[in-house]
Amino acid sequence: MKVLGKPEIMALFRPEHALQLLREGLIAYSAGQVQQPPVQHFGFQQGQGDCCIKSGYLIGDDQFAVKVSSGFYGNAQYGLASNQGLIMLFSAVTGAPQALLLDEGWLTGLRTALTGRLVAEVMAPPRVAAIGILGTGMQASLQLEQLASVLPCRTVWVWGQSQQALQRFIQPFVARGYDMRPTQDARELASHCQYIVSCTPSSSPLLQADWIAPGTHITAVGADAEGKQELDASLVAAADVLVADSVVQCTAFGELQHAFAAGAIGLQDVHELGAVLDGRQCGRRAADDITIADLSGIAIQDVQIAKSVLQLLD
Amino acid sequence: MKVLGKPEIMALFRPEHALQLLREGLIAYSAGQVQQPPVQHFGFQQGQGDCCIKSGYLIGDDQFAVKVSSGFYGNAQYGLASNQGLIMLFSAVTGAPQALLLDEGWLTGLRTALTGRLVAEVMAPPRVAAIGILGTGMQASLQLEQLASVLPCRTVWVWGQSQQALQRFIQPFVARGYDMRPTQDARELASHCQYIVSCTPSSSPLLQADWIAPGTHITAVGADAEGKQELDASLVAAADVLVADSVVQCTAFGELQHAFAAGAIGLQDVHELGAVLDGRQCGRRAADDITIADLSGIAIQDVQIAKSVLQLLD
Repeated sequence: MKVLGKPEIMALFRPEHALQLLREGLIAYSAGQVQQPPVQHFGFQQGQGDCCIKSGYLIGDDQFAVKVSSGFYGNAQYGLASNQGLIMLFSAVTGAPQALLLDEGWLTGLRTALTGRLVAEVMAPPRVAAIGILGTGMQASLQLEQLASVLPCRTVWVWGQSQQALQRFIQPFVARGYDMRPTQDARELASHCQYIVSCTPSSSPLLQADWIAPGTHITAVGADAEGKQELDASLVAAADVLVADSVVQCTAFGELQHAFAAGAIGLQDVHELGAVLDGRQCGRRAADDITIADLSGIAIQDVQIAKSVLQLLD
Repeated sequence: MKVLGKPEIMALFRPEHALQLLREGLIAYSAGQVQQPPVQHFGFQQGQGDCCIKSGYLIGDDQFAVKVSSGFYGNAQYGLASNQGLIMLFSAVTGAPQALLLDEGWLTGLRTALTGRLVAEVMAPPRVAAIGILGTGMQASLQLEQLASVLPCRTVWVWGQSQQALQRFIQPFVARGYDMRPTQDARELASHCQYIVSCTPSSSPLLQADWIAPGTHITAVGADAEGKQELDASLVAAADVLVADSVVQCTAFGELQHAFAAGAIGLQDVHELGAVLDGRQCGRRAADDITIADLSGIAIQDVQIAKSVLQLLD
C-alpha cells in the first residue's frame, strides 16, 4: 500500500488530469453508473468536531475509495489543520488497500474548486464584466483561481465579514494583476457581478432575488448540511436554470433544500451537473437566464481526484 | 500514525483485554452511548466481491474507528485472503488518524468469537454434555476455541457439508484432546448438544424447531444480510429468550429478520446483549429455557477490539 503525505500529493497533483476524471465521474454519477452509499456522520463534543465518511465506486472501475473528512475547530491550539482527513483507495478486484492519501482535506478543496470550474464551462453567461466571490476562506480562494482558466475576466468583487480577512484574501490576487474590490455589502457585489460564487458556512441568505440581474450565474458551494443557506429561497425559485451535483442530495441538504422544502421547486426543476456536462441537459438556455449551480459535494468527486493522484504514481 | 500488519497485531493481541473492552462497548451500545451511523455497502461484479464500511464512536471516548471489511471470493488465485479489510482509529479530540490496523479481517473474526464467549457467560444452560458447531470455517473454529474458557465440555459435534472440510476442522481439536464428532446430519447434532453455535453463510434453515430440546442454547452468527438464515423461523418464535447484539439490526438483517418479518416476534421480545451483560435483562430465566442469541456484528465491536490493540502499543 502506498502512503502519501500532503506535500507529496501537492507535488504530484495535475489539475488538468483531475479535471478530466472529475468530468467523467460526474457524468457516470448522473448516468446511474456509481455506487455511493449514504454518508456516515459523527459529532464530537470534546473537540468541537465533526466527521463524515463518504465512499464511492464507479461501476466497472479498478478502484473504489473511502474518504474520512473531519472538521475540528479547536485544532489550531495543537498546531493542526482543522481537517485531518484522508482518502483510501482499494482494489475493486481483490479489495486490497492500494493507497492512503493523507491529504488533510486538500484534495476535497481542490475537487470542489475544479467542479466549480466545470460549472463555469457549461453555465457562464457570455459577458462577465466582474466576478463576485462571497467568502474569504480557502475554498473561496481556490474557486477564484480555478475560474481563471475559463473566464478571462480579472475584475473581482469579494464579500467578507471582516476587513482583515478581505485584505488577506485579495493580496495574492492583486500581486497577480487582478483588479480586486473588497466589500462588506453583498448587494453592492451583486450589482456589479455576472458570475458569482458563494463559499461561506452561512445559515441565512446572503443574496436576495431582487439584487440579481438577468444574465447572472451563481454557484453556491457553502450549503452541505441541514440548515445551511447562502441564497434566498425566492432567488432559487426565480432562477431559469437550476443545476445540482446531486439532485437528491442538494434538495435534501444542499442550497436547494429551502426552496424544495417550501414547495417552490420540484425535483423536475433541477438538472444534474453530470447530465449537463454530458450534453443531455442544458446549463444555460439564453444569455439573460439567471442560472444557479448547487455543489453539495459527493463521493464520486473524492474517488476521481484520489484516482488522479494514484495514476500519476504508476 | 502507527501502521500495523496482521503478524504484529496477532503478536500484540491479548484476548482477555479485548474481552473487557468488548463487554464495555456492548453495554454502552445498549445504553445509547454509542454513535454508529448506518453501514455502507458495496458489491463488485469483477472480483465476486463485496465490501462494507462500519464506523463507531463510544461517546466521551478518545478515539473513533472506521472499518473497511471486504470479501472477494476469487482472491485465492492471487494468493490473497478473501478479506483484505482494515480498521483505522482516529482521535475524537483532533480528528487525526492514530493507527491503521491492516488485519485482513482477523480482528473481525476475533471480536465475533469473543462476543460469542460473552454470550456463553450469560446464556449457557447449567448442563452442557456436548457442544454443537455448524460450519467448518475460520469463525466456527474461533467460536469453539473461545468457548473453552467458559464451558468445561470438550465433547463437540461438528456439522459440515463436506467430509474433507469436517476432517480438516476437527484435527487441531482432536490434537488438543477434544472428543470431536463430525456429522453431515444437523438433526443428529441437535439431538446431542445443549450449546450450539451456527457459523455458516446459509440462506435456508439448518435447524428445525422440533429438533431442539428444552435447556438448549443456540448462538446464530452467520446471518448478517438480507436473506441469510440458519434457524427456522418457528424455532426463533418458540425460543423462551431472544438476545441480539443490536435489536434494530438483527430484526432487519440478522437471524431474527425472518420471524420478525412474519410477525412471529416483535421488538419487545428481543433483549439486547449489552443490557444482559449489564444485568438489566436476563439471558436465561430457567434451566430448561430454549435461548437464542443473534450476533449480526456491530461497529462498536470493531471500535473496541481496535482500541485494545492500540492500548497495548502505548
